[in-house]
Amino acid sequence: MKAPSSLENLIEALRCLPGVGPKSAQRMAYHLLQRDQKGATKLAGALTHALDTIRHCRRCNSFTEEEICSLCRSERREASLLCVVETPADLMMMEQTQSYHGLYFVLMGRLSPLDGIGPKEIHLDRLIQRATDGAVNEVILATNFTVEGEATAHYIGEILRSRGVKASRIARGLPVGGELEHVDSGTLAQAILERREV
Amino acid sequence: MKAPSSLENLIEALRCLPGVGPKSAQRMAYHLLQRDQKGATKLAGALTHALDTIRHCRRCNSFTEEEICSLCRSERREASLLCVVETPADLMMMEQTQSYHGLYFVLMGRLSPLDGIGPKEIHLDRLIQRATDGAVNEVILATNFTVEGEATAHYIGEILRSRGVKASRIARGLPVGGELEHVDSGTLAQAILERREV
Ligand SMILES: [Zn+2]
Ligand SMILES: [Zn+2]
Repeated sequence: MKAPSSLENLIEALRCLPGVGPKSAQRMAYHLLQRDQKGATKLAGALTHALDTIRHCRRCNSFTEEEICSLCRSERREASLLCVVETPADLMMMEQTQSYHGLYFVLMGRLSPLDGIGPKEIHLDRLIQRATDGAVNEVILATNFTVEGEATAHYIGEILRSRGVKASRIARGLPVGGELEHVDSGTLAQAILERREV
Repeated sequence: MKAPSSLENLIEALRCLPGVGPKSAQRMAYHLLQRDQKGATKLAGALTHALDTIRHCRRCNSFTEEEICSLCRSERREASLLCVVETPADLMMMEQTQSYHGLYFVLMGRLSPLDGIGPKEIHLDRLIQRATDGAVNEVILATNFTVEGEATAHYIGEILRSRGVKASRIARGLPVGGELEHVDSGTLAQAILERREV
């Protein structure tokens, strides 16, 4: 007795989700088919629609549905400040502090040689181009205070300095090993205030 | 700054998955869009295809792509034995023991008044019809040994007995509070062997 093939396929497909193993993929598939067909239909549609419409902003590299995202197009942001974060989620965390009003560059990752993520994968060339376009006076490095995030900040800081661009690092107000995503707004706001040149 | 709406929709849609909260839905959405667009495409397709093709077997109520599933159609199964399980996953567990050769009825749940799951939701009328069709000599109740699973077995056992149908319960070889899905085949095989009339 085998499960129907379309059910097997669904279980297998669910395993592309991070943190989902065979057991929970099976549980998810049964749940969707038995208890939430409406949710499953919506999920299929949302996936297809997001894949169709989401791209990377040509300026900040974050997710957007447009060529250039609304934040990059805003005239109320200080164009002289550029904040480098690892992920769009980190960008959101920065915004929630309401204490940063410059622009962003989203690496979409961090340097991680073991995972094959090098300077090219974090779009370092685009970041340097952006940082040296004349409008930017300071680059604030807001990668995580993990080993990889620190190494990434160090690496980018060195390169920027060699190009004559002022680079600073948000203060280690975050707990060591901590990630932006899991910190409260107040701590993060303090870290922005206390940033130091690198 | 808000996330693009199709991204927000995807994050929201992912929350229909059991055990997925706002944080992990966000992590999943970013992962799919950034690192696994191919997986996302496959997942959308698998969902749509499964929703299109998967239905409930008219005899055993398990998932199938056909009117009547291959297990129910098999002539090598003992038609005089009917085993009642909560889910298709439990049916699979029973099959893996290779010590049961009868047919099945899948409740697709268990009695749970607090969740609004009553006799109708577990298709009790269809089970009784199936158990009293003349071919069945014994109904083996293999619901979980949880409070709800026990109550369900007791309830179904009483009704079957009142209709003159022999009903048995798999032995409590399973740990108390245990679920079929998490038990090894040997223990479950023993429990089938030691089933007792209820
Ligand atoms: Zn942008
Ligand atoms: Zn069947």
